[in-house]
Amino acid sequence: MDYGSETLAALVRALSRLPGIGVKSAQRIALQLLRSGADSATHLAHLLVSLHEKVRFCSSCGSITETDQCAICTDPGRDRTVICVVEEPQDALFLEKTGQFRGLYHVLHGVISPIDGIGPEDLNLAALSLRLRDGEVRELLIATNPTVEGDTTALYIARSIAPPDCTVTRLARGLPAGATLEYTDDTTLARAIEGRKAL
Amino acid sequence: MDYGSETLAALVRALSRLPGIGVKSAQRIALQLLRSGADSATHLAHLLVSLHEKVRFCSSCGSITETDQCAICTDPGRDRTVICVVEEPQDALFLEKTGQFRGLYHVLHGVISPIDGIGPEDLNLAALSLRLRDGEVRELLIATNPTVEGDTTALYIARSIAPPDCTVTRLARGLPAGATLEYTDDTTLARAIEGRKAL
Repeated sequence: MDYGSETLAALVRALSRLPGIGVKSAQRIALQLLRSGADSATHLAHLLVSLHEKVRFCSSCGSITETDQCAICTDPGRDRTVICVVEEPQDALFLEKTGQFRGLYHVLHGVISPIDGIGPEDLNLAALSLRLRDGEVRELLIATNPTVEGDTTALYIARSIAPPDCTVTRLARGLPAGATLEYTDDTTLARAIEGRKAL
Repeated sequence: MDYGSETLAALVRALSRLPGIGVKSAQRIALQLLRSGADSATHLAHLLVSLHEKVRFCSSCGSITETDQCAICTDPGRDRTVICVVEEPQDALFLEKTGQFRGLYHVLHGVISPIDGIGPEDLNLAALSLRLRDGEVRELLIATNPTVEGDTTALYIARSIAPPDCTVTRLARGLPAGATLEYTDDTTLARAIEGRKAL
């Protein structure tokens, strides 16, 4: 489409390459940025440049940080005998929000997915092996997503990475809070029956 | 939420202020930009800065351009006796794509919407009056959206802006191509009956 401006066209193209943004949304965003004055566009530009300058991944767990090690890894109050393994940095944030976990995290930055050509060597697993070497960790809570890829990755870690004296656990599966049996899919119901607990 | 990086948190906030992007999408986009290397983030930043430096609105019609007047206004092959009035710059692009209109455009940059505090004086209407003054324009095709605001604006232009010797028209309303009567709303059906044409 001829936008009357090559700059605008290039911005729409760049925006439409972002996840979850199609061409129509990209157009709307670009025109909104055009309308809302130079300040907000410049502010966003500045943040985009700072992003790669300032943000890095924690050298220990792979979480997002602006220093060498993240705030959780350096917190003396955290339980160093439990490591929760997650797929992406944001997963650790979501678990942190519950306030239920006081151990450390380890971010894989992906999952094993043969269909996408992603194998164990593409994940942050070497660092995990290293963290497990001194035997301090007693439990590895694998919190990958309840998908085929998440399960495969969990199994791989349990079999090939976890030391024999370390308990490997997985997040519970069952009915989400507020669900109705009527609208719950078969797999979830099956898992809920399988994992039933005594009252 | 504590992202472990103030820069990342600020980027998520800035992105979530864009139209159609919520916090979850903003997070996904920010993390994707973080993962995909500095180049794409820097490229986007560069385009955002250029946007307000290069893009401007055509001094005649209000369309997007990088020069003083847009390509359509300066095209000697366009019919200068018809002006199509649209709400936003992209509306002119959509109409252009049909190849059915050979006249000029005029972009209002909004619609009259009392509920949002937008009156005629907030729209690009003074420039339209100016363009209509020399009497060259014979038809004003009002292509605002078929909404209450679009209709109000069309009526205002017909009554207060258009000169008496200038025909004011409005885009036809009826069934969209490929529609089924079963799934067409009452208002659209009513308009389709009202505007029926002899075969």
